[in-house]
Amino acid sequence: MSEPIYVVGHQQPDTDTICSALAYARLRKNKSEDVVPARAGALNPETQFVLDRWDAEVPLLLDDAADEQLILVDHNEYSQTVTGTEHAEIVEIIDHHRIGDIETSEPILFRNEPVGSTATILTQLFDDANETITTQTAGLLLSGILSDTVVLRSPTTTDRDRTVAGRLADIAGVDYETYGKDLLSQKSKIGEKSPREMVLSDFKEFDFDAHQVGIGQIETVEPSVVLGQQETVLEAMDDVATERDYAVFLLLVTDLLEEDSTALVAGPEIDPIEEGLDTTFTDQESFLPGVMSRKKQVVPFLEEAFNSTGP
Amino acid sequence: MSEPIYVVGHQQPDTDTICSALAYARLRKNKSEDVVPARAGALNPETQFVLDRWDAEVPLLLDDAADEQLILVDHNEYSQTVTGTEHAEIVEIIDHHRIGDIETSEPILFRNEPVGSTATILTQLFDDANETITTQTAGLLLSGILSDTVVLRSPTTTDRDRTVAGRLADIAGVDYETYGKDLLSQKSKIGEKSPREMVLSDFKEFDFDAHQVGIGQIETVEPSVVLGQQETVLEAMDDVATERDYAVFLLLVTDLLEEDSTALVAGPEIDPIEEGLDTTFTDQESFLPGVMSRKKQVVPFLEEAFNSTGP
Repeated sequence: MSEPIYVVGHQQPDTDTICSALAYARLRKNKSEDVVPARAGALNPETQFVLDRWDAEVPLLLDDAADEQLILVDHNEYSQTVTGTEHAEIVEIIDHHRIGDIETSEPILFRNEPVGSTATILTQLFDDANETITTQTAGLLLSGILSDTVVLRSPTTTDRDRTVAGRLADIAGVDYETYGKDLLSQKSKIGEKSPREMVLSDFKEFDFDAHQVGIGQIETVEPSVVLGQQETVLEAMDDVATERDYAVFLLLVTDLLEEDSTALVAGPEIDPIEEGLDTTFTDQESFLPGVMSRKKQVVPFLEEAFNSTGP
Repeated sequence: MSEPIYVVGHQQPDTDTICSALAYARLRKNKSEDVVPARAGALNPETQFVLDRWDAEVPLLLDDAADEQLILVDHNEYSQTVTGTEHAEIVEIIDHHRIGDIETSEPILFRNEPVGSTATILTQLFDDANETITTQTAGLLLSGILSDTVVLRSPTTTDRDRTVAGRLADIAGVDYETYGKDLLSQKSKIGEKSPREMVLSDFKEFDFDAHQVGIGQIETVEPSVVLGQQETVLEAMDDVATERDYAVFLLLVTDLLEEDSTALVAGPEIDPIEEGLDTTFTDQESFLPGVMSRKKQVVPFLEEAFNSTGP
């Protein structure tokens, strides 16, 4: 029996990462390969809701990937991988983000496409392989798309995401607007968390020209739940920035209904953030009209600002 | 009128790189985009033969890519790109090599597949877009596959390459074995070159853990043409290694009929080469039975050997 290949998404897993790991492991298993879906951390409440709704298994928790064979889904930079990935063999990557710092010795399949979710690309891969998409797999893939695109409202949404979501909703037997609202309400269940859990619940770490930068995002229909306890939230952010020696920790509190964000900031290097986002922070806070996407409306501009600043 | 997007392959362009640039520019132009095929250097005799045979235009020579928009084909590491690419915007990558060091700020299409040629992937992209492949485009794509896979004999060859080559040969109206032999005979026209031209004719530069390593390959049905003038060939290699401050310059003289290679080596760091290829050099020469592919049978092992050596 050969060693298994783990399909694993990014740290602080979200619904697209978990559902993509499950769906792609299925596709590969259909070719009778020993492929196991895995995850890099705890499930968030939205993802738990999705797995319950579609009666799907929880992927295996992968603590240390050293010496394993990995298929990365929904990420392609080391700062977001499971511990030990530097010493693992990466055999494939399926993603929809910027191209990161992963290098391989041998040619591998790396399929990165500028669409709203990894689940959108995976649906294409099922089609390319002439594999039937079951009701359950359709439910998982649809959840990945709707979660990552905020029910097809985020500026990252493409026509392909819309077409694929419609088709998957038909197979899954749900109305995607209604089901999407159920998802969003789960995403908004943040009032039950501690401030530290809140700011780290959807969190990514970047290395911009040797500056470590943390960028969290809270997508909610009730931003007042977060902003009403701003002082303790900023304390939690200050603690994280200090512990992890971040140049800066940026938190986007995104209002899903108004389609804009309030940014909070902690750590020493606020200047590149102000420059990159063309804004000014007062008391560590700034309002960003129209900003909904960390990936498209924030990360590229911060990277550019840090690069022009120098280390 | 918007700025054009250049489709460009690697330095020391070979037939797959040039034909891929031509074919992909055509596919994108069919969607009425301003996409221009380009090249990073002079055509080799085989590629010139191919363009004459199919009456295709010579891609534009791109001297400096700074501030341009680029689609990279057939490579994905900075050491192989046209000058100025560090300051260009890379908008897409289509390739079949190891994953290199290119990072982007925004999500882009990056389609890397472990097949024998970039032309194989491009044929798929024509199909995905429901675009007809003309006789001329089929001839160019077929040339890319046959050249990179040594007429489907290299260990990099996959079943997909075979299937695609058969289909393209039908469209192009040629027998691929006969046409392939014509190509190989062009590849072998090396006796007319100076030793320096010879060792640099199919040449790639790598950065292995901060060691600059040059790896050239001469694929020929008459290795004696090269090995018969070994002394002057080694002198040319020594000169290049010194001028460019290489840790090592490895030249593979690959016998296309016997399907093995003779390796020549110049520069100070021969130990990692011996370790990586599990061989011993005598008078800067070593025989490598069964070795035909730089990409698959040489590069990964040298990278590993240099990584374990340290800088």
